[in-house]
Amino acid sequence: MPANRQIVLDNRPTGEVTPSNFKLVTTETPALQDGQVLVRHHFLSLDPYMRGRMNEGKSYAQPQPLGEVMIGGTVGEVADSRHPKFKAGDRVVGMGGWQEFSVVDANQPGALRKVDTTHVPLSHYLGAVGMPGVTAWYGLVKIIDPKPGQTVVVSAASGAVGSAVGALAKVRGARAVGIAGGPDKCRYVTDELGFDACIDYKEHKDAHSLSKALKQACPDGIDGYFENVGGMCLDAVMLRANAFSRIAMCGMIAGYDGQPIPMQFPQLILVNRMRIEGFIVSEHMEVWADALNELGQLVGSGKLRPRESVAQGLDSAPEAFIGLLKGRNFGKQLVKLA
Amino acid sequence: MPANRQIVLDNRPTGEVTPSNFKLVTTETPALQDGQVLVRHHFLSLDPYMRGRMNEGKSYAQPQPLGEVMIGGTVGEVADSRHPKFKAGDRVVGMGGWQEFSVVDANQPGALRKVDTTHVPLSHYLGAVGMPGVTAWYGLVKIIDPKPGQTVVVSAASGAVGSAVGALAKVRGARAVGIAGGPDKCRYVTDELGFDACIDYKEHKDAHSLSKALKQACPDGIDGYFENVGGMCLDAVMLRANAFSRIAMCGMIAGYDGQPIPMQFPQLILVNRMRIEGFIVSEHMEVWADALNELGQLVGSGKLRPRESVAQGLDSAPEAFIGLLKGRNFGKQLVKLA
Repeated sequence: MPANRQIVLDNRPTGEVTPSNFKLVTTETPALQDGQVLVRHHFLSLDPYMRGRMNEGKSYAQPQPLGEVMIGGTVGEVADSRHPKFKAGDRVVGMGGWQEFSVVDANQPGALRKVDTTHVPLSHYLGAVGMPGVTAWYGLVKIIDPKPGQTVVVSAASGAVGSAVGALAKVRGARAVGIAGGPDKCRYVTDELGFDACIDYKEHKDAHSLSKALKQACPDGIDGYFENVGGMCLDAVMLRANAFSRIAMCGMIAGYDGQPIPMQFPQLILVNRMRIEGFIVSEHMEVWADALNELGQLVGSGKLRPRESVAQGLDSAPEAFIGLLKGRNFGKQLVKLA
Repeated sequence: MPANRQIVLDNRPTGEVTPSNFKLVTTETPALQDGQVLVRHHFLSLDPYMRGRMNEGKSYAQPQPLGEVMIGGTVGEVADSRHPKFKAGDRVVGMGGWQEFSVVDANQPGALRKVDTTHVPLSHYLGAVGMPGVTAWYGLVKIIDPKPGQTVVVSAASGAVGSAVGALAKVRGARAVGIAGGPDKCRYVTDELGFDACIDYKEHKDAHSLSKALKQACPDGIDGYFENVGGMCLDAVMLRANAFSRIAMCGMIAGYDGQPIPMQFPQLILVNRMRIEGFIVSEHMEVWADALNELGQLVGSGKLRPRESVAQGLDSAPEAFIGLLKGRNFGKQLVKLA
């Protein structure tokens, strides 16, 4: 069996994540038992939710155990199989973690899924046609549920989730407005993703300033907001929220290192009869089939053109992850492993 | 026609409301035209929402116009009628405002409603079996929707809305826990209203302290919260909120004078997949009949024993209203007018 390089969580961050929180180790992949599949990973997905898992505190999921391989979505090919439904060469998606190979018990429901790469490149199954895409779909369709002509705003708009939110909103006849960091990302959001407008939050030093820019970009107010960031973005959007507006609370990356991120104007929830709802996509497996179907069509037809930042080799994963948390990535952050 | 004493809004408060914001005037009641009814008010209702109307700023309702009679719910008796459905002596509820008499165009839908005082005292139609009761009903039934065994917390628990929330929660098999100000109110909440526990927020100087008390009172966490206050109460409850908990956002009296009342831990919305929903009962007329029916039965059967603070005479309305905003009332705040 091949040698397998792995990244484990060595110690928990206090504040910002640093490379020293991780450790690279090399192990031998164990021999396959009946029902198991050996997967060679082509790409590892890096996602903001991983930051939450690195903390010890109470969250919706168990903390990442120390000394174990970091959790993470992977796509790759079957290298060897002792399961009748998988054969060498099959393209598969799973939760292989931060390592080059994984041994998967393929009888476990949802552990390994074969994918078709005829119209959709393999890596997109970690992004637009994977967990981030379904995350966008659930929040947009099930919580925001925009009507034609309504305005939907999304933060981190150039990212894997944000870009899909915009495409799904446009297909439903809504106005899509992004918030992103820097002129390059904003240009991509409007010119390539087809959003109606995009605001560079780095040009604004507080919520009131950002809110003025939102007023210009959203002349009819804001009916739905898909939140990936929190803090100033959330406050600014709430100042422009319409009556009966909805906020899908998906992530608050601004507070992942423990910074206080108070919501400044909660009274607006009442004044505008808003609905704010937090969700985790893995608790809504019932929507995955519909969502992946629509997302696959959007990507296949070019209506959603996801962008990727690809780091090379497992060693680069910690720095790439830290970059993601700081917004240095541009589009879906991946690590190429083979 | 009788002389009519009225209280008008003379000028808008900057910060706290003061008696000088109001002016007492005396006018003559106009002669009735066809379809009109002259109502002699027995009780005026004082409610926190009036504070919001006194501001000029954007809110869900039009601001109270300067120089006009303050808005307010009233119960009374028909003194004279030129409408076939009303006759002198009928007991009626309406929005007569801060004055001793009102002339009502009874053809306007919902302007005037006859009530039966056989089992329910007239004044309760301004409280438990009126707008505050329906407010409690909507938030508890339509937003919180507690399952048997779940825990529901309500702030301002001894008030007109809070007391009804507790009774409605108990009937549904939920654990009801109140937050109120002072030992007398807390005793009333547990001993007379039948809540399972009540916490005196005045014994706690910050959200973390209040949250510890909530942990004791809610050993299985909090599944639903009915918010009348905001600020420290909201933060403390969110620190104990269960997965998939619901907050019905009804009022935030802590911020009515313009104080900042940030929500300290919005990331808990995501961590606990919470749903927070603001509402205004007047936008949900479809529930009033069902709600009033259940509330009338709760009061008639003694399962809900509303308490009232009654100020004497129209002149006392401004001071009584200021007391309400400071939590000096005990139960539903009324002004006896006749």
